[in-house]
Amino acid sequence: MSDLQERISASFSAQGLMATLGAQLILVAQGEVRIALLPRPELSQQHGYIHAGVLTSVLDSACGYAALTVAPAGLDVLTVEFKINFVRPAVADRFVAVGKVTKAGKTLTVCQGEVIGEQGARRETIAVMQATIINVSGHS
Amino acid sequence: MSDLQERISASFSAQGLMATLGAQLILVAQGEVRIALLPRPELSQQHGYIHAGVLTSVLDSACGYAALTVAPAGLDVLTVEFKINFVRPAVADRFVAVGKVTKAGKTLTVCQGEVIGEQGARRETIAVMQATIINVSGHS
Amino acid sequence: MSDLQERISASFSAQGLMATLGAQLILVAQGEVRIALLPRPELSQQHGYIHAGVLTSVLDSACGYAALTVAPAGLDVLTVEFKINFVRPAVADRFVAVGKVTKAGKTLTVCQGEVIGEQGARRETIAVMQATIINVSGHS
Amino acid sequence: MSDLQERISASFSAQGLMATLGAQLILVAQGEVRIALLPRPELSQQHGYIHAGVLTSVLDSACGYAALTVAPAGLDVLTVEFKINFVRPAVADRFVAVGKVTKAGKTLTVCQGEVIGEQGARRETIAVMQATIINVSGHS
Repeated sequence: MSDLQERISASFSAQGLMATLGAQLILVAQGEVRIALLPRPELSQQHGYIHAGVLTSVLDSACGYAALTVAPAGLDVLTVEFKINFVRPAVADRFVAVGKVTKAGKTLTVCQGEVIGEQGARRETIAVMQATIINVSGHS
Repeated sequence: MSDLQERISASFSAQGLMATLGAQLILVAQGEVRIALLPRPELSQQHGYIHAGVLTSVLDSACGYAALTVAPAGLDVLTVEFKINFVRPAVADRFVAVGKVTKAGKTLTVCQGEVIGEQGARRETIAVMQATIINVSGHS
Repeated sequence: MSDLQERISASFSAQGLMATLGAQLILVAQGEVRIALLPRPELSQQHGYIHAGVLTSVLDSACGYAALTVAPAGLDVLTVEFKINFVRPAVADRFVAVGKVTKAGKTLTVCQGEVIGEQGARRETIAVMQATIINVSGHS
Repeated sequence: MSDLQERISASFSAQGLMATLGAQLILVAQGEVRIALLPRPELSQQHGYIHAGVLTSVLDSACGYAALTVAPAGLDVLTVEFKINFVRPAVADRFVAVGKVTKAGKTLTVCQGEVIGEQGARRETIAVMQATIINVSGHS
């Protein structure tokens, strides 16, 4: 593991919510991060499907960490804002949130991402996000 | 409790995620719904603050239920999309997500909402959301 | 006119687009700016109504100038991003774009705004916006 | 020209704003539409660069027409909402707005698009958009 992978892996493990959701960090690359999630009753909305907020949480994290892979050394990142569209029913055996850097700037980084639903051999986009992330002075 | 309050209360109780987050439905009025949340380590991001995705989840739910209070009888609602800005650090004793209907249409309803952080006597806006919700054929 | 009003008025007059659209700056206050616009065939979409992009342009300008009213002296502002919902048909005798500051920060300012359609005595919200603006080193 | 290309070309020509902006429809394909624009002083913001609202207007139109290429026959489209990020200075010899369909539904279509700045041999993304479009009963 590279320094960056170690750093993001450690940060991910420190997130209480990611453990609560059962989310797993499955890819850290320059400008791209992927997080996987299995549906569970504890994460459902009222009809038993996974809650939109859960998919949003992991996709927000994937975009934030993607931004971190391109941030200047020693800086941390914070989500300024994002927008998400839900384009298909959230029904899948596994969900993979993919965050990618669209443009890294000195202060702000823009990411785009999607949640992919995997069901058998099928791969379908369930949600798409556009996010703005800001570089901030790092935590020790 | 009115029929609408009962229906929304029952729907809220059926959400696995709201129980997992420890969220509480505290107001159901025509065009406005409020959900309260206490911070816990299980809901944190990597620095111990409440995760942006948690605040987003309860605010999304507050907006969705606000839209449901003005939906034609027998219809249910689904979130089409939303955008959220995080405007202050998420540090508070209690968070209250307030969803309000801006415009109810036959097919689509637009809501605006905010997360208010309560700390002692202080009340501050922590996040603001603009959401689009669609009326769909109801679940039995 | 205060210095701030003069400065925003001069900036507004320097915008080629605002002249092309026939937009008028009608209010500059601390944290709020209003721009008025009359519908004309040159600003229409394919069915003769005013183009959504025209309403967006004046509302973006109203939000940007609202942010400028609270920016530190000597700084200028740039739009980072915005989201706009169109909630009613854009039919009115006059449109007024109202931009208001939700939260002013050292680097970023979040504004919320709306386009109000005036038709006879009626005043209706036609569009709502949530925008992020960044303070940048001023132009001489 | 196919029927669809003719229909979109006729609709584009009926837009007063597109003529005012000097915008040109340069591609109509299944699920993708491109509109080109040259910068002019009449379209500027206060520092002489092209106004963000102008780029937004053509990108909104490109996304709307992209949605129309996949809409059921006889239906027209309306923009429900969009979000746009400005990721680089809007400096170019020519701007090309590219709208693409992400997911076409029975009622709603989600599009993603970008404005590309062309300067000499350079091609750079200047803005990215995520938009929701609704199918409505067609105009005669």
